[in-house]
Amino acid sequence: MGLIVQKYGGTSVGSIERIQRVAERIVEYRQAGHDLVVVVSAMGKSTDVLVDMAKQIAPFPSEREMDMLLTTGEQVSIALLTMALHQRGCDAISLTGWQAGVHTESVHGRARIQEIDNRRILAELEKGRVVVVAGFQGISREGEITTLGRGGSDTSAVALAASLKAEKCEIFTDVAGVFTADPRVVPSAQKLPSISYDEMLELANLGAGVLHPRSVEAAKKYKVDLVVRSSFTNEEGTYVKEVADMETGRVVSGVAHDEDVAKITVIGMPASGGTLSKLFNTLAAQQVNVDIIIQGSYDSELTNISFTVSADDLHKALETLSANQAALGFERVEHETGLSKVSIVGAGMINNPGVAAEMFRQLADQDISIKMVSTSDIKVSCVIPAEHTGLAVRTLHTAFGLDVKEQAVVHGS
Amino acid sequence: MGLIVQKYGGTSVGSIERIQRVAERIVEYRQAGHDLVVVVSAMGKSTDVLVDMAKQIAPFPSEREMDMLLTTGEQVSIALLTMALHQRGCDAISLTGWQAGVHTESVHGRARIQEIDNRRILAELEKGRVVVVAGFQGISREGEITTLGRGGSDTSAVALAASLKAEKCEIFTDVAGVFTADPRVVPSAQKLPSISYDEMLELANLGAGVLHPRSVEAAKKYKVDLVVRSSFTNEEGTYVKEVADMETGRVVSGVAHDEDVAKITVIGMPASGGTLSKLFNTLAAQQVNVDIIIQGSYDSELTNISFTVSADDLHKALETLSANQAALGFERVEHETGLSKVSIVGAGMINNPGVAAEMFRQLADQDISIKMVSTSDIKVSCVIPAEHTGLAVRTLHTAFGLDVKEQAVVHGS
Repeated sequence: MGLIVQKYGGTSVGSIERIQRVAERIVEYRQAGHDLVVVVSAMGKSTDVLVDMAKQIAPFPSEREMDMLLTTGEQVSIALLTMALHQRGCDAISLTGWQAGVHTESVHGRARIQEIDNRRILAELEKGRVVVVAGFQGISREGEITTLGRGGSDTSAVALAASLKAEKCEIFTDVAGVFTADPRVVPSAQKLPSISYDEMLELANLGAGVLHPRSVEAAKKYKVDLVVRSSFTNEEGTYVKEVADMETGRVVSGVAHDEDVAKITVIGMPASGGTLSKLFNTLAAQQVNVDIIIQGSYDSELTNISFTVSADDLHKALETLSANQAALGFERVEHETGLSKVSIVGAGMINNPGVAAEMFRQLADQDISIKMVSTSDIKVSCVIPAEHTGLAVRTLHTAFGLDVKEQAVVHGS
Repeated sequence: MGLIVQKYGGTSVGSIERIQRVAERIVEYRQAGHDLVVVVSAMGKSTDVLVDMAKQIAPFPSEREMDMLLTTGEQVSIALLTMALHQRGCDAISLTGWQAGVHTESVHGRARIQEIDNRRILAELEKGRVVVVAGFQGISREGEITTLGRGGSDTSAVALAASLKAEKCEIFTDVAGVFTADPRVVPSAQKLPSISYDEMLELANLGAGVLHPRSVEAAKKYKVDLVVRSSFTNEEGTYVKEVADMETGRVVSGVAHDEDVAKITVIGMPASGGTLSKLFNTLAAQQVNVDIIIQGSYDSELTNISFTVSADDLHKALETLSANQAALGFERVEHETGLSKVSIVGAGMINNPGVAAEMFRQLADQDISIKMVSTSDIKVSCVIPAEHTGLAVRTLHTAFGLDVKEQAVVHGS
């Protein structure tokens, strides 16, 4: 029985009662003979409460002081969970980020982990203790408390698993695993027994929301076997690893969708590379995230460029373009709302060139118009009218054979 | 203009609005040219909320984990106060106990400060910053987060003032200073312009509640000039220092009282020193705090011993005695409740031998019976029936000339 790193998110430790349940689960693992390092997030909405207090004081508080403030959230969780373990006769100790040796860049709010000095953790494991570590936080070279930004606790867990050469890293969350589609849209959606890092990355970026892309990237880089599973049940979750089990021969692993997409078309731009980079730099400077980009022909001196943004960013994007029209030199801007993005993801696509064509045919058969297309090795995304989102997802889910439950796959340990 | 260390207690930073007011006060000090190190406690009732969560999990949580939990309270305060300072254009930085170099014993829940490594604080002051330090907390040699126990933030402030050789240490609290008596009992009670460490210690131990005795002891040891004042007004507070200003020639500085006193008499104890120490060790082992002790004559082989405990501890004390009757060898126990302790305190008593007699006469004139007496160089305490507490305090307050406001004393800086 080897070492397992577990991570429990904010929902999983959102109340005293849930902390008790997490403690019970940990005790079961201990009884089964596992060594455990447990990473926890701040309790439920406690981070929101802290952010709200800060906002009452300063609209743009210093990032250093925000880190000072927010890191208290995980510190509360680790102390309470450790007390709950003691109460069950389980030897355990809590460690803050700096005590656990999580060294990061000297940046606040979004620091990357640079190194883990795992000596203290190893010494505590040696004493037979469960080590409960505050996720999301670390310490800079200058002795400052830092945070890892969004998805930070997942990243903490993966980095610790890599450093400690853990058998696996289990991410406990409020869903049972990674599904072939959003079960709220596709009732026949199946939980995937396994998925590759690359597929998970595409799904994570597409808004599947189970794991932050950053933690998946770290897992891929350090070859950490990840498991996503529910903290409320004993169900097996989804393994995320180098290569998913291929015995099912599936081509597509999942269908993702992203609603509230808006399309902007900039008409009559000077057709030079410099202008294009100026356009997207100007938008990036205003924190507008651009997704799919399609450029018209370079035949003339002027070109048209279409791109998508989230509907939330539309107003800001249009304002930014308007304010910079002279500098960018375009004629006019058009935009379209009420769109969504539907994507199929699967490592099997690499060897199956007809997949994109099949996707287009399926959508056409349902009279769903395709506004834009974007592809990668393992993903095809189509922008369509939002009112057809559910139909499109269900159609593709069926067409690519995802309605059927996969064979259970036995994972050795 | 020199360096001032200020401490703001939980009530002073009990809400966002109060934190804003503290920030405004600090800005005024900065504008007057002072360098400032500001020690803060956890916001209002936030410690109680944390303690309550812990108690829901474990009736007797590990002290280490309680320290981990409770130190988040001050960390929240320092971050918010620092943001409020930034918002007013005041350069400032928050430091946790370990960042501020507060090194303590390797004990949890009640660690004593061993050393302050003030290099980080000095470096931040050098940059022209207000340094906001989390009170109540420190770090042990082993890198563990520790707390200083009750009165901890006052002690943090005094220790920092001593280490930094500050001009003075201002303790901001919810009262305007140290009074000659509790103003709720004696409407004519006067705020003292100054008081000596020794007098303050007697008053602190007598339950005047303004400063924890421990912080007064530290101030006395390191000759730190303390000022107790209100965080809600601009009134001058009370200076606590080596020797109070003596120009008023006062003999008694204040009248303190302590309600809810119970008296226990152990009858027929073997009259040997060993038994006496066994008796009080047995009570101490059960955390029963014994105050005044009076022993009857040693004439016979048996003696009677009376002592007081707080009414809260009476039940535990009686149970403990009963359980140890055989070992201690006494005949029986009597007890009396409904008592209080009234004390007069004043450094001037040392040279005025008639003070105790005058106190007894004043109480006798009011037909107040005296149950027990205890004296020190600068204090006389009498145990009396609790129903006469108010009358006794007012009578003594008038008799010792405390109803009249002292001349204002000008303090140089």
